[in-house]
Amino acid sequence: MNMSNLSTYIERVRERQPLIHNITNQVVINFTANGLYALGAAPVMTNAIEEAADMASNADGLLLNIGTLSSPQVEAMIQAGHAANQRNIPVILDPVGAGATTFRTEAARRILDNVNVSLIRGNAGEIGSLAGLDVKVRGVDSEGFHDFGDIAIHAAKQLQIPVAVTGEKDVITDGKQTFIVENGHSLLTKVTGAGCLLSSVTTAFIACGTDILESTAAAISFYGVVAEVAAENNPGPGSFQMAFLDALHQVDVDTFLEKMKVIFSKEEIK
Amino acid sequence: MNMSNLSTYIERVRERQPLIHNITNQVVINFTANGLYALGAAPVMTNAIEEAADMASNADGLLLNIGTLSSPQVEAMIQAGHAANQRNIPVILDPVGAGATTFRTEAARRILDNVNVSLIRGNAGEIGSLAGLDVKVRGVDSEGFHDFGDIAIHAAKQLQIPVAVTGEKDVITDGKQTFIVENGHSLLTKVTGAGCLLSSVTTAFIACGTDILESTAAAISFYGVVAEVAAENNPGPGSFQMAFLDALHQVDVDTFLEKMKVIFSKEEIK
Amino acid sequence: MNMSNLSTYIERVRERQPLIHNITNQVVINFTANGLYALGAAPVMTNAIEEAADMASNADGLLLNIGTLSSPQVEAMIQAGHAANQRNIPVILDPVGAGATTFRTEAARRILDNVNVSLIRGNAGEIGSLAGLDVKVRGVDSEGFHDFGDIAIHAAKQLQIPVAVTGEKDVITDGKQTFIVENGHSLLTKVTGAGCLLSSVTTAFIACGTDILESTAAAISFYGVVAEVAAENNPGPGSFQMAFLDALHQVDVDTFLEKMKVIFSKEEIK
Repeated sequence: MNMSNLSTYIERVRERQPLIHNITNQVVINFTANGLYALGAAPVMTNAIEEAADMASNADGLLLNIGTLSSPQVEAMIQAGHAANQRNIPVILDPVGAGATTFRTEAARRILDNVNVSLIRGNAGEIGSLAGLDVKVRGVDSEGFHDFGDIAIHAAKQLQIPVAVTGEKDVITDGKQTFIVENGHSLLTKVTGAGCLLSSVTTAFIACGTDILESTAAAISFYGVVAEVAAENNPGPGSFQMAFLDALHQVDVDTFLEKMKVIFSKEEIK
Repeated sequence: MNMSNLSTYIERVRERQPLIHNITNQVVINFTANGLYALGAAPVMTNAIEEAADMASNADGLLLNIGTLSSPQVEAMIQAGHAANQRNIPVILDPVGAGATTFRTEAARRILDNVNVSLIRGNAGEIGSLAGLDVKVRGVDSEGFHDFGDIAIHAAKQLQIPVAVTGEKDVITDGKQTFIVENGHSLLTKVTGAGCLLSSVTTAFIACGTDILESTAAAISFYGVVAEVAAENNPGPGSFQMAFLDALHQVDVDTFLEKMKVIFSKEEIK
Repeated sequence: MNMSNLSTYIERVRERQPLIHNITNQVVINFTANGLYALGAAPVMTNAIEEAADMASNADGLLLNIGTLSSPQVEAMIQAGHAANQRNIPVILDPVGAGATTFRTEAARRILDNVNVSLIRGNAGEIGSLAGLDVKVRGVDSEGFHDFGDIAIHAAKQLQIPVAVTGEKDVITDGKQTFIVENGHSLLTKVTGAGCLLSSVTTAFIACGTDILESTAAAISFYGVVAEVAAENNPGPGSFQMAFLDALHQVDVDTFLEKMKVIFSKEEIK
């Protein structure tokens, strides 16, 4: 695989300005909208059941995030998901906190039972618990890569959906083909919604691509490069957050390609 | 008309510190409150139906924004609007996304049927669709000024309410008298809630003024000058956002007057 | 009392990384989560009645903030409060706007009737009105210290709950022992949610301490020192906000101890 292909995704997103409909949590709704604007995409954030399907029908991608879930919001997500499925608009699920409470795990499973999802993006605990794997939610991210990749591949096979498991390293896989991304910066863990915005950015990349795994690898690597650039002169979590939005807007194909760290494997990691 | 009058509005707002009750959307609620604080006004953001009327009765201005509407929120807006009308507190409507879904257009019309609104602020697509004009929502902002001013004047006559149609140029009109504002900066289109905060800032100016059109022209021109000042050393959308809040706090009467670009016309633009 | 004890609290918080469950208002939910991350704590922000008790049971501290209250949210707060009480997890109440509307005052009292609260943090008007004192909500903060301390002590005795009344000076008291904190900066009044985040930070300190009053005095003094450090080179409210998050992350024990201004008194202030 020629990785320089991946670097062109950011140009496509900025040219096409995809309209991304986000049904997401209250904590990150502002940061997500600002992040998508900075990237060059166009955000829509409505979650009212009265218009969720209407809005999704006109979008280029739909992102469902269960971070501050309520029962009516689950219904709105399913209606929007149906509308998106009917028009072949990609749907991405971010199962925030799945495994932490029964309500969340069941809501995420209900969405998966009712909507065709193109990709699930979360941490190893969230995606492992969705797939019914015996994963300890705390501490998973600090385990070695061997287990980490294993979780992703087993979950993708079990769920029959491509997954992006993010952490110290990021694993994108459909169970057969796997990308490993090694970009990123630890300051991302100090900004609330950094993972949530990544899911929305990934939705924008998928909306402009043809291959789910490749689009997702490009999105996650780009996001990590943006974090590396933003962290260069910004040691605190507040100033980093603003520098991150600046860099989302400014990092170009050349910088992306130069800093990209992506490994591709057709073999299963065991 | 002596435009130097307009520049004194910012002093009035900072002296009187009007209490602005905002029933607004989840995306921009934090940015709106911070923007009003930075301006020198006092924000209140409650939208519970149990207290919306109580809160509005004690405010100096009421802003209704339908950006992430729900059915209970429409009721809260109408109750707050009634309470404000009874005490002659000005009510400003920001019909975010009117024309994009049936739910939004009808909710905005229902508010207009039940509440006396002093001003509607939105883009040409939103205000045109509220007035029943045949406006294409996408691309309207990039059309020439001739059509743009036409939409504003026709909408104000049709709705019998003063309107502020903002875009590359801003048109404030009641259908007879018209202000055109040419301040602003393109970075505002990269910050979510830039239009929403403008509606709240306009509410604060109207609360401290006597003439709706003049107060609105002052607010929109001031806001544009603030953006110009903030953009001087801040090329990215993240750092611009913070510089914008700083400049809302710091731009004074002299800078405002020096950079103000406002045209007044008693004749209809055809 | 040896005040250098107080300075060690910040180390404890950063070591233990307490999980703080916040049921809070829409305006400040993002800033609160980012502030807790910057401090070194771990935030959870869910307010769904379906999982509020589950989430609170696993937390180290529970913060209830009534800033944008709805009736279902009051129920979620009470259920979460019960769950926390059963496991001796400290519960802190921030009665935002109590006294401003009947709905808020009654909701705050209902929470106090149903949940054992470790501390109430608010301004003099909010806490005074909760305690049934004849306090004018506007202007209270600008009165002299004599009245201000009086309100705190009377309220603590009346409510039989320790209170932290914050304003130009901050008074932490259970009616018998009193801490007075003189740290802080006026730019905090230009950032929405500065008081709300203080309540969440205080919850984190209480979760890592043994004595409620001492933990609270440490939290409030630390927060004030952070504001002083952040204000040094940031005159505007936007850049201050980001510098404040940076300083929450960076201010260490030595800086804290050097700038700390706390007075302790075993005698009642009359």
